[in-house]
Amino acid sequence: MPGKIRTAQTVSFEIPAAQQPGLHNRWHPDIPSIATVKRGETVKIECLDWTGGQIGNNDSADDVRDVDLTKIHYLTGPFEIEGAEPGDLLVVNITDIQPFDHSPWGFTGVFDRKNGGGFLDRHYPRAAKAIWDFDGIYCSSRHIPGVRFAGLIHPGILGCAPSHDVLAEWNRREGELISACAHSMPDQVVAQPPNETNAHAGTAADEALKAKIAREGARTIPGRPEHGGNVDINNISRGSTTYLPVHVPGAKFSVGDLHFSQGDGEISFCGAIEMAGIITIKFDLLKNGMKERCVSSPVFRPGDVQQLFGPSRYLTFEGFSVDEQGKQHFMDATVAYRQACLRAIEYLKQFGYSGEQAYLLLSCAPIKGSIAGIVDVPNVCTTLGLPLDVFDFDISIEAERVKRDLGACPVSAEKL
Amino acid sequence: MPGKIRTAQTVSFEIPAAQQPGLHNRWHPDIPSIATVKRGETVKIECLDWTGGQIGNNDSADDVRDVDLTKIHYLTGPFEIEGAEPGDLLVVNITDIQPFDHSPWGFTGVFDRKNGGGFLDRHYPRAAKAIWDFDGIYCSSRHIPGVRFAGLIHPGILGCAPSHDVLAEWNRREGELISACAHSMPDQVVAQPPNETNAHAGTAADEALKAKIAREGARTIPGRPEHGGNVDINNISRGSTTYLPVHVPGAKFSVGDLHFSQGDGEISFCGAIEMAGIITIKFDLLKNGMKERCVSSPVFRPGDVQQLFGPSRYLTFEGFSVDEQGKQHFMDATVAYRQACLRAIEYLKQFGYSGEQAYLLLSCAPIKGSIAGIVDVPNVCTTLGLPLDVFDFDISIEAERVKRDLGACPVSAEKL
Amino acid sequence: MPGKIRTAQTVSFEIPAAQQPGLHNRWHPDIPSIATVKRGETVKIECLDWTGGQIGNNDSADDVRDVDLTKIHYLTGPFEIEGAEPGDLLVVNITDIQPFDHSPWGFTGVFDRKNGGGFLDRHYPRAAKAIWDFDGIYCSSRHIPGVRFAGLIHPGILGCAPSHDVLAEWNRREGELISACAHSMPDQVVAQPPNETNAHAGTAADEALKAKIAREGARTIPGRPEHGGNVDINNISRGSTTYLPVHVPGAKFSVGDLHFSQGDGEISFCGAIEMAGIITIKFDLLKNGMKERCVSSPVFRPGDVQQLFGPSRYLTFEGFSVDEQGKQHFMDATVAYRQACLRAIEYLKQFGYSGEQAYLLLSCAPIKGSIAGIVDVPNVCTTLGLPLDVFDFDISIEAERVKRDLGACPVSAEKL
Amino acid sequence: MPGKIRTAQTVSFEIPAAQQPGLHNRWHPDIPSIATVKRGETVKIECLDWTGGQIGNNDSADDVRDVDLTKIHYLTGPFEIEGAEPGDLLVVNITDIQPFDHSPWGFTGVFDRKNGGGFLDRHYPRAAKAIWDFDGIYCSSRHIPGVRFAGLIHPGILGCAPSHDVLAEWNRREGELISACAHSMPDQVVAQPPNETNAHAGTAADEALKAKIAREGARTIPGRPEHGGNVDINNISRGSTTYLPVHVPGAKFSVGDLHFSQGDGEISFCGAIEMAGIITIKFDLLKNGMKERCVSSPVFRPGDVQQLFGPSRYLTFEGFSVDEQGKQHFMDATVAYRQACLRAIEYLKQFGYSGEQAYLLLSCAPIKGSIAGIVDVPNVCTTLGLPLDVFDFDISIEAERVKRDLGACPVSAEKL
Repeated sequence: MPGKIRTAQTVSFEIPAAQQPGLHNRWHPDIPSIATVKRGETVKIECLDWTGGQIGNNDSADDVRDVDLTKIHYLTGPFEIEGAEPGDLLVVNITDIQPFDHSPWGFTGVFDRKNGGGFLDRHYPRAAKAIWDFDGIYCSSRHIPGVRFAGLIHPGILGCAPSHDVLAEWNRREGELISACAHSMPDQVVAQPPNETNAHAGTAADEALKAKIAREGARTIPGRPEHGGNVDINNISRGSTTYLPVHVPGAKFSVGDLHFSQGDGEISFCGAIEMAGIITIKFDLLKNGMKERCVSSPVFRPGDVQQLFGPSRYLTFEGFSVDEQGKQHFMDATVAYRQACLRAIEYLKQFGYSGEQAYLLLSCAPIKGSIAGIVDVPNVCTTLGLPLDVFDFDISIEAERVKRDLGACPVSAEKL
Repeated sequence: MPGKIRTAQTVSFEIPAAQQPGLHNRWHPDIPSIATVKRGETVKIECLDWTGGQIGNNDSADDVRDVDLTKIHYLTGPFEIEGAEPGDLLVVNITDIQPFDHSPWGFTGVFDRKNGGGFLDRHYPRAAKAIWDFDGIYCSSRHIPGVRFAGLIHPGILGCAPSHDVLAEWNRREGELISACAHSMPDQVVAQPPNETNAHAGTAADEALKAKIAREGARTIPGRPEHGGNVDINNISRGSTTYLPVHVPGAKFSVGDLHFSQGDGEISFCGAIEMAGIITIKFDLLKNGMKERCVSSPVFRPGDVQQLFGPSRYLTFEGFSVDEQGKQHFMDATVAYRQACLRAIEYLKQFGYSGEQAYLLLSCAPIKGSIAGIVDVPNVCTTLGLPLDVFDFDISIEAERVKRDLGACPVSAEKL
Repeated sequence: MPGKIRTAQTVSFEIPAAQQPGLHNRWHPDIPSIATVKRGETVKIECLDWTGGQIGNNDSADDVRDVDLTKIHYLTGPFEIEGAEPGDLLVVNITDIQPFDHSPWGFTGVFDRKNGGGFLDRHYPRAAKAIWDFDGIYCSSRHIPGVRFAGLIHPGILGCAPSHDVLAEWNRREGELISACAHSMPDQVVAQPPNETNAHAGTAADEALKAKIAREGARTIPGRPEHGGNVDINNISRGSTTYLPVHVPGAKFSVGDLHFSQGDGEISFCGAIEMAGIITIKFDLLKNGMKERCVSSPVFRPGDVQQLFGPSRYLTFEGFSVDEQGKQHFMDATVAYRQACLRAIEYLKQFGYSGEQAYLLLSCAPIKGSIAGIVDVPNVCTTLGLPLDVFDFDISIEAERVKRDLGACPVSAEKL
Repeated sequence: MPGKIRTAQTVSFEIPAAQQPGLHNRWHPDIPSIATVKRGETVKIECLDWTGGQIGNNDSADDVRDVDLTKIHYLTGPFEIEGAEPGDLLVVNITDIQPFDHSPWGFTGVFDRKNGGGFLDRHYPRAAKAIWDFDGIYCSSRHIPGVRFAGLIHPGILGCAPSHDVLAEWNRREGELISACAHSMPDQVVAQPPNETNAHAGTAADEALKAKIAREGARTIPGRPEHGGNVDINNISRGSTTYLPVHVPGAKFSVGDLHFSQGDGEISFCGAIEMAGIITIKFDLLKNGMKERCVSSPVFRPGDVQQLFGPSRYLTFEGFSVDEQGKQHFMDATVAYRQACLRAIEYLKQFGYSGEQAYLLLSCAPIKGSIAGIVDVPNVCTTLGLPLDVFDFDISIEAERVKRDLGACPVSAEKL
């Protein structure tokens, strides 16, 4: 007789994240598993928000500005999946994600350029924040009036532990990038090497092991092709099925960084509506699936329940690889998408939003970012689709231009 | 009493494109208008395929390999829109696009790496081709069995003529790129400067003017932010409305490069299902719209009629900015999307397709290319969605792996 | 080498429909086939509008009022499908439907209560008409300003010829209804028995055969479960595949009554946007499919290209089986849907439409009619979804109520 | 500072429904309000399943067969909405619905023909049952293997209390129907008049008042045009906004009969996946909206988050108003939809389902029931769309016919 779905791991809002044994914030094969899940079993897993509670439901962006980025991505796990072996595919079917009933809110932040930055940090170097209140599956913000939308709720991070070999490969290639860019991009953090500060090795009790994990463990910021990780893919939402490569016995699956909603690109870095919550997952395995199914990097199928605006309800901006100083870049889709974002922000400012409000909104609302043409030298063309239906007022090209009083979001003074 | 929609310009399949006065293949403010269209008027405009008929409905890719890229993008126009002045927005509502009844076919090509290349030319350096037969709104190919899909039919190119200032800016910035890359990327055509060879100046009768246009006219390959041009955006399809900046009196609108279908990215360069056909457009103006609507680069709304697979019907591949040699790139969305493409091709090869067949298919089928996360240094994450429903057989992860006989597409010997 | 799609049958706008040998207006097994189509072949078939040209592109509804309903449903066919035998399923894949280039318009009519009537003829007893102009895949009407929408283009009628047994069954059961209602509903035409007047027996040359067909041939007004016929299903549109029972050797497939658009229910009877045009069909057979696939009545799958408004873009009216006089009916879905229609019309009148304009609009626009609950005695609940996006102005519940000048549609004096 | 959403009313699984003061099972203006909600406020409301717990999570249908239908539709409420007056519209925005965490299951039942019956009770007269287990937003059943789908979760019943006048009108017209049918349909319960047995008058403490409510209170089975009630509209789901006529001061809103999923028609009567749960509603008012907005019967807009299969993923059955005995009915949409249902059941039986399993499945899965043509005398044409994607195996027309072992659902012996 079926019963209540088991909670495989809880979290606490009272105990500091760094002291909770069910969490960890590095990728390493030796972090001990915290629980075992059977093939075919569905479990609930609780998660803190990605900062482990550093950001408050208030009207100042100072906590965003001063966030400690060595103390982030407290993931819940790792979970041992019975029978999983290297070479298998772990089948992760997300059947639900919910915020906690007692904590129906989330936040979107712009990081200070000196502490994290973001996609548009040359234009918006100061920290900013918006708090979002959840009203069932919808959200709205006192800091960005005039919008309300349903969340395509999803985990920013999901993946299995790397093997020692995979971990070494990550550290090699990212280290090479750091070395290669040391002179050419001295002011830019191009990648984050292992860092012992504030490393959380989960339930590793042995001091030597803890030190090893802290010393070697890969940072969680980037997604990586071998296992997924911080992919920030908004349609890995409810109903989705993701096929994850398994690199270590038991798979050692971890998950976290829950997002109530996120636009394609998550452009402000802390750009989703970040939240704590509960994810429900049904696990299964495809034995030897990496080879037999030709899958070496995660593959997924979205769920069949999504927010559906009609295609004509997206006001769509084009962006090319010519930057805002008029410099021509060669086939650079990143530059191209940045242009589309900047144009959409300028457009929204006509209606009364500040630049920071618009930047936050593009980061977290259901924005579509697409690659249109990627072969017409020297210009990549990308598009950004802005859904008309998230706004309380008409933002179409034809709409009367009335500058509304749309309040303000908190913006902090420069980080010293 | 309304009547038959007027054809504003015809084309001929008998006369060489280079001799047809209604066509041109450079962007220049002085190319004379070929016809005038009123505000609010709907007209039909005939277009040749983008190569002006260089590619045949046959089973050899040699014509693709040997295509003369100085003789391409024969656009129909320019059309003078009554009342249009610089600073206006030209409103282009595409109400239909059809192939010619007498020519119900199109082609997709992979260019030889020495003559055009494409997004994956390091992996697929040889020219390849697929011919597609149109069966109403659906298409299929004798060169890529096992697939059939409806086309999201659209023009690859639409835009108004640049002003002299805009043209000068294009030539400056692309010239600077060419100079800057001369040493670092000697084997790569990074941009194409004006080239008098095979320039088609439309109806310009005066030899001095023709020479000036040939000498100064911008090439049509790249889309450009000031006017759009070769944007290759597949959902600028039937029902879409595009708002185009006007830079010269009368707007001088041109259109061409019709595509029966195209995947996001159009990755093989000649990657859409290229066709000749008839586009129906309703024109209007938003006077002084560039300033009053804050639009300096084209903006559009897709039509409300589209191919609709459910969201769960897309098998989706992730791609990160780590290249296939294991090199870590910094926030490079172009590298990331290439990885997703390469993975999807390897996946499709399991079912019996050749690499070239899969490459052609990803170029032209309704593939979704999205920007997932663009802030998690050093890795951009992009996704490529492959629609299950275009295949006659099951290509899901769970599907039984049976290697089918899926024939072959023509692939040419190396271009000498 | 594939080529131009063959036109299996043309029609003429010059010759009266009754004299064109490729047409017929009765269902009878003995109407001779006009052409043969192979299994797997795609052909184009031209069709007149359902009245055979009785209605003009003008501003009077008198032609609608005076339409001769014995001269309707001139179907094109029958086509012999090679190899088809009774018990097979004919697979009809519609790959395109287009109006004629030279005739880009259609009409929607309300019939006079004395000559055809309609779903709301007690409320709107007079004939009315709207002419629609086609602008590519979109349409608009000078008689119903303020709306524009894409057509979900489809044939109202498609089916295979009945066998003699099937025809006899039709005539039996409809005759019994006529007898049964003779006293209880004396003013209502409950069904139309065979009628020799204006019968068109197609190419039947033999006078005896013509007379037999005229005497026995089933009228085309109702759809019938054994073969489909006049089903008026709007999503048997482009891309759809319908599986039709075959009752006679060669199948003898006929098609006609093309609709540019139609709301669910086609409530005003002549309620679609009726047009002449060209349908493209790919035919196939499933041998012995009726038994082996358990299909005794037509089954279909819609195409994957449709007009897509978001679900929240439908203002939806509820209708119950309590009629407008307050009488409670028992589980009558027909009464229930009528109530939803009447409420939607009253709603639209607030914005300036006349009742007839609104009635015509609900008949032909992309209206969704659904069965909600059909078990809660004594009330069926049905819903009617009115798409907000077909209107140029805001018709939401919250919209400011401004009575617009929305002109008028022609309405005729009572038929004498 | 926003906080946790308030629960306006709880229910208990321990105390019999008939003894819980927050519930009632009749519609009457004098049932006292149980709580007050402010304009603009969002509250959670707990609901029992519609039978008040009569049906168990077990493998026998006897509890369904023996259900006491005088003890049903325990609604939570009525809630007084501050400021609501007769003539207003109550704006009900459903922002979430969830099953209870401790009770993640629901049931679908076929009623015995002698105790409730259903749409197909002449064909399936015996009681049957399926238990559904909820796995996040998806469900599956041990009694109907081979299917799994997301629920379009919704309340079957929502509405404001009738005024005394409205109530009198209901009792008048339904009483007239009962009288009128007494002779013609002696075996059929055509409507249910007020019945004192097991009436639950909510918090009415006064015995005289309780007796009055029991004596006069309208039964909850039918939806009714004046207030909605038991409409069983599946897309009044999360995100939907319904505009309900207000007939009494304070509106006196009640809600209940939550459904995890329901097909159009809810054909087996107890045909949804019936569950207990929590609905979250944001309330507002449109003052004097009935007159000013021309709304006398409920109107709604669905939410923008729905289950989305592509249109071509529905295998669609046609149904006409010719019944299974070959009798021709006149324009009877109810008969027509029944035919479509019967055909779909026969179709599903090919794959191994029993008739009862298929009947239950059509009742509760996301089935589309549409009105196609409602004017072609004598035949209404309706359609039933069966989504291919809810099945684990291929049920298309072309699929190989393999009779699977699909177990059985419990079916009870005849009710004595």
